[in-house]
Amino acid sequence: MEHFMQAALEEARQGLGEGGIPIGSVLVHRGVILGRGRNRRVQLGSAVLHGEMDALDNAGRHPAEVYRESTLYTTLSPCAMCSGAILLYGIPRVVIGENRTFQGEEALLKERGVEVEVWQEPECIALMESFIAASPELWHEDIGE
Amino acid sequence: MEHFMQAALEEARQGLGEGGIPIGSVLVHRGVILGRGRNRRVQLGSAVLHGEMDALDNAGRHPAEVYRESTLYTTLSPCAMCSGAILLYGIPRVVIGENRTFQGEEALLKERGVEVEVWQEPECIALMESFIAASPELWHEDIGE
Repeated sequence: MEHFMQAALEEARQGLGEGGIPIGSVLVHRGVILGRGRNRRVQLGSAVLHGEMDALDNAGRHPAEVYRESTLYTTLSPCAMCSGAILLYGIPRVVIGENRTFQGEEALLKERGVEVEVWQEPECIALMESFIAASPELWHEDIGE
Repeated sequence: MEHFMQAALEEARQGLGEGGIPIGSVLVHRGVILGRGRNRRVQLGSAVLHGEMDALDNAGRHPAEVYRESTLYTTLSPCAMCSGAILLYGIPRVVIGENRTFQGEEALLKERGVEVEVWQEPECIALMESFIAASPELWHEDIGE
């Protein structure tokens, strides 16, 4: 697996090991990881720390030009909140591990000019399929359903 | 001023007193405040805790049906990230203090069926105008510009 997607997947697996929802993300600027994150709904009781949000938060504060040269890697298709964060900061490229188990706001991102790649990584799909089967209520809570 | 908008404005003013960006928000479920929040970019070095996000986070974890009976009050028009969070959780109504100093994603919210009210509160407008004049760089960072 490609290096940055591997890092996002490691975050997802660490989250699962903590009893959390296994979705991970990394924010990459010019080949360097600025922030790594994972869904921390369970771990911190947070309604806003999806994997992508946690990566953005852990990256810290940056001026607009940094985001505009960055790529966000995420193991799962980004929901409306995370897609909105991508749009707020003008992140031009998003690489998605898979969208088989959840289809986020990819159409909105593309409509606003974001380059979206979906790699359909078998390891990302297997991780989410297994999690959703084991914890459907937690999963539904996380996507507001 | 109406009670819940007043609570959001108090959060905004508290944020200003902490050296932060003066935007506040409250999440209200059936007449009860579930969570109060304010922009905490400066206070916590956070790139994701806008006022609305902080209110959602402080409200804690809830099942979908709670959000779907809630109203989010915010002193300023919600950006793409905060609007995305509103869409994720299916919050049906958003009351906005003002959109004179910043126009967020109100059109997207309405397009997705969210009821949006803009009250153009003079105190909210004055607070943001004064903050933007005093701290333009911080403000631009907060909106990814």
